[in-house]
Amino acid sequence: MLLLLHRPVVLGLQQACRLRMTPSRLCIRACSTNDSLQPQHPSPSFSDNSSTRRWKAMGTLLGLGAVLAYHDHRCRAAQESPRMYTKEEVSSHNSPETGIWVTLGCEVFDVTEFVDLHPGGPSKLMLAAGGPLEPFWALYAAHNQPHVCELLTKYKIGELNPEDNVSPTLETSDPYAGDPKRHPALKVNSQRPFNAEPPPELLTESYITPNPIFFIRNHLPVPNLDPDTYRLHVAGAPGYQSLCLSLDDLYKFPKHEITVTLQCAGNRRSEMTQIKEVKGLEWRTGAISTAHWAGARLCEVLAQAGHQLSDTEAQVCFEGLDSDPTGTAYGASIPLTRALDPEAEVLLAYEMNGQPLPRDHGFPVRVVVPGVVGARHVKWLGRVSVEGEESYSHWQRRDYKGFCPSVDWDTVDFDSAPSIQELPVQSAITEPQAGDTIESGDVTVKGYAWSGGGRAVIRVDVSLDGGLTWQAAELDEEEQRPRKAWAWRLWQLQAPVPAGQKELNIICKAVDDSYNVQPDTVAPIWNLRGVLSNAWHRVHVHVAP
Amino acid sequence: MLLLLHRPVVLGLQQACRLRMTPSRLCIRACSTNDSLQPQHPSPSFSDNSSTRRWKAMGTLLGLGAVLAYHDHRCRAAQESPRMYTKEEVSSHNSPETGIWVTLGCEVFDVTEFVDLHPGGPSKLMLAAGGPLEPFWALYAAHNQPHVCELLTKYKIGELNPEDNVSPTLETSDPYAGDPKRHPALKVNSQRPFNAEPPPELLTESYITPNPIFFIRNHLPVPNLDPDTYRLHVAGAPGYQSLCLSLDDLYKFPKHEITVTLQCAGNRRSEMTQIKEVKGLEWRTGAISTAHWAGARLCEVLAQAGHQLSDTEAQVCFEGLDSDPTGTAYGASIPLTRALDPEAEVLLAYEMNGQPLPRDHGFPVRVVVPGVVGARHVKWLGRVSVEGEESYSHWQRRDYKGFCPSVDWDTVDFDSAPSIQELPVQSAITEPQAGDTIESGDVTVKGYAWSGGGRAVIRVDVSLDGGLTWQAAELDEEEQRPRKAWAWRLWQLQAPVPAGQKELNIICKAVDDSYNVQPDTVAPIWNLRGVLSNAWHRVHVHVAP
Repeated sequence: MLLLLHRPVVLGLQQACRLRMTPSRLCIRACSTNDSLQPQHPSPSFSDNSSTRRWKAMGTLLGLGAVLAYHDHRCRAAQESPRMYTKEEVSSHNSPETGIWVTLGCEVFDVTEFVDLHPGGPSKLMLAAGGPLEPFWALYAAHNQPHVCELLTKYKIGELNPEDNVSPTLETSDPYAGDPKRHPALKVNSQRPFNAEPPPELLTESYITPNPIFFIRNHLPVPNLDPDTYRLHVAGAPGYQSLCLSLDDLYKFPKHEITVTLQCAGNRRSEMTQIKEVKGLEWRTGAISTAHWAGARLCEVLAQAGHQLSDTEAQVCFEGLDSDPTGTAYGASIPLTRALDPEAEVLLAYEMNGQPLPRDHGFPVRVVVPGVVGARHVKWLGRVSVEGEESYSHWQRRDYKGFCPSVDWDTVDFDSAPSIQELPVQSAITEPQAGDTIESGDVTVKGYAWSGGGRAVIRVDVSLDGGLTWQAAELDEEEQRPRKAWAWRLWQLQAPVPAGQKELNIICKAVDDSYNVQPDTVAPIWNLRGVLSNAWHRVHVHVAP
Repeated sequence: MLLLLHRPVVLGLQQACRLRMTPSRLCIRACSTNDSLQPQHPSPSFSDNSSTRRWKAMGTLLGLGAVLAYHDHRCRAAQESPRMYTKEEVSSHNSPETGIWVTLGCEVFDVTEFVDLHPGGPSKLMLAAGGPLEPFWALYAAHNQPHVCELLTKYKIGELNPEDNVSPTLETSDPYAGDPKRHPALKVNSQRPFNAEPPPELLTESYITPNPIFFIRNHLPVPNLDPDTYRLHVAGAPGYQSLCLSLDDLYKFPKHEITVTLQCAGNRRSEMTQIKEVKGLEWRTGAISTAHWAGARLCEVLAQAGHQLSDTEAQVCFEGLDSDPTGTAYGASIPLTRALDPEAEVLLAYEMNGQPLPRDHGFPVRVVVPGVVGARHVKWLGRVSVEGEESYSHWQRRDYKGFCPSVDWDTVDFDSAPSIQELPVQSAITEPQAGDTIESGDVTVKGYAWSGGGRAVIRVDVSLDGGLTWQAAELDEEEQRPRKAWAWRLWQLQAPVPAGQKELNIICKAVDDSYNVQPDTVAPIWNLRGVLSNAWHRVHVHVAP
């Protein structure tokens, strides 16, 4: 086991570009250095690209050194006879009341006493309560240092039952049995299909969301596609042949790279549910993430298939290779004007943060439509065609549309509203969280802000008094290209807690470069599908006496 | 005088394309058929283009016939000896308390009894109270019919003192002495420089705003430019010669026509003033109007001067020929990316609604930047250049920017905010008006909605109960091209007044095709210049018992 833990690190370094791995490999690789190539905890990434690269390099080195040191430590520990625990026992210790246990490899630690001393804050450590530390250490490589491991040994209480390391048998009759393993930090809104979001405290830890915690919005089981036999079919224009592109064919198009934020139309739906019931998953503030994508430009692929802008009403329809038991695939469309506009930078992406797309994010190829709702970024892309009208997919015509609050399921006419493409300006607070108790003195408020259509966020206003007074937050310094601000801005505000306050009603609202703002309240934008929930984000916290 | 009234009609028909006229000619032409080429009162223009054309043709014929009939009538009336009034006496009769007098030609009428019988509603007739009818009849040609003139004779009480027809002597030392005469329906916010808006009840009477009541936003005196000697200077790109274009040179570029709504950044500022004082003119809901513009495409003129998109940060700077006593001209700039994008349709316009530009609107050439704040549509255009940064004009760098509500004149840093270009989604109610008493039964609510950047308005929600419940309004059917919805949509809602209500709090809010919405309230978007006032529009009315 010790060797197993050690070897994959080296293997992982050698094979960082390998495309697929078994679930058990994934589990072990989570603590290797591949996934630690991310900005480090706890510093927020208000940094330029070169310093981000420095962090990445340092994280890689530290990660390897730390694991070697840890190996030595564990060899010593193995000489004693430890008390054994089952995974169930560990997972039941996940709160201050029960005690807080975590595992690292096969070792079990009771960190109840340490939680309040955690340099990154108790809430971050609590994410791992009752489970393994590896997935979190993999994201935040600062942990992979000898002094951290040394510190941890103080809290060791025993080891995991060896049988508990066996993966559960997969139910082969379950269409979701082939779904990949997911990172335990994800907050799951639905298991089948799998839909999950990163917790707020991790979401804005870095400008680029690490792949393992990028929000996942699946409509169907994840297809298991062989990159060698994968083909993308692109219907040809009249007089042109259709294309049948292998991955290698796609690689031959110029590789285009852009940083793009994806947001689900249902992000923050849970706030609409509080007004009145809606149909949809209970997304909190995490159905949004940012990645650096690389792939072929859709406009160049379409041009090769003979398409040009003849009809301004024409649409480009996408079909996924995921399908339901009746064989119906996921589908969506975008206007041809956007698809052919090189400035719109629509991608057929095959890389996400320098890695092949993870299976949950569309391996081997997905569409990325900068500035547009996530629903159009079709994953596991199988087919592209140019049509006279929108995709006939349910998700294009009978979902992902906004309506007047008075429209209900008896009166809705889906044809009366345009399908959502560009999204409105959005922002949310990720720190502190609702119900937190903050110290008196200064409070640090953090969050994200983004707008659709390439519109840059130019300001975020924060109120500590329920909207009576406002202060402009400090925005990160990530580059915003004119008309192509495809990615979010992280922001923070440090401000004194008004003296004598026992509680704060913290609010944020963003402004984009068309000076569009967020609406004050949720009820007037309520709609039966609970989409487009972009009212001011409000967080109520207590102030420690 | 009778002949004078008659002849200009014929002259007007013959010389509809003449560029300039003296004030007295303008005054008389106001009741000729040229300006009556507009959709008619009282039907709102929920009509296609062909029916609009039919109205125009009918208006022309009716206008001529009516004036001839009226000529006969006046010849008979002249045989009696009428009582004489001064203009001052007439203008003092402008309310139900004083009696309501109006004039037509040299005749004076007491229409106090008729106001409530006016088919277009009392409020429309009251616009002319104490003054001449001609400017209003010119806009709404339905009045130019024999039965209307016949009806009016019943209310005749005398004639205007002949001396009162002399134009007041112009103060030659006054820099504003050369400003053109304006339509009396305009609500004046500032005389020097002249700033005025159409009253709400006229604003949405027609999709295209008639030139005489199009809102006027001047920063300086109106220059008096000779079309024969006018030249537009366009600085050449490195290695290219600069252009010096006469009007005829501009006419040689392909003529491009588009319908575009212009809105001042200060529209609805008066609602911000109610929260806290701001610096700026007290615009109500009328600093917005729509015209059909024609001119040369800026991108083609720039291309002829050798400009191309090399630097994405570059700006196109415009300089007006209006200037203050120190010689400082009005100036503004837009990004070169927009200027060179043929899809953005930026115009050097020389026609407005089929006429040469009126002097107040930039005669002979102005910029029209679809989807962008009015301040960049530089009038009386003298110079165009491509620069590495924005115009150094006060109006580009020290005005027309938005700030957090906490920023005041002591703390403002104008460099910290981007200049306003695209405007956010906007809507307002034009009927009924605040304080009106409406009948129980059904209420008709009318208004406009528009968004910047070519984003189409897709829905307007109306509430009759202060925002608790909402109904979607009916939108006009004017064409909205994808990504090029440059013009507003008029809308209306007919709904039953809830039984037993003594008052209604009517609200409207619009949604654009990026699903951006208007904020609920004004205070959180308040800013020291009072710009970008786009909160829900609220109108409180009483219900007749």
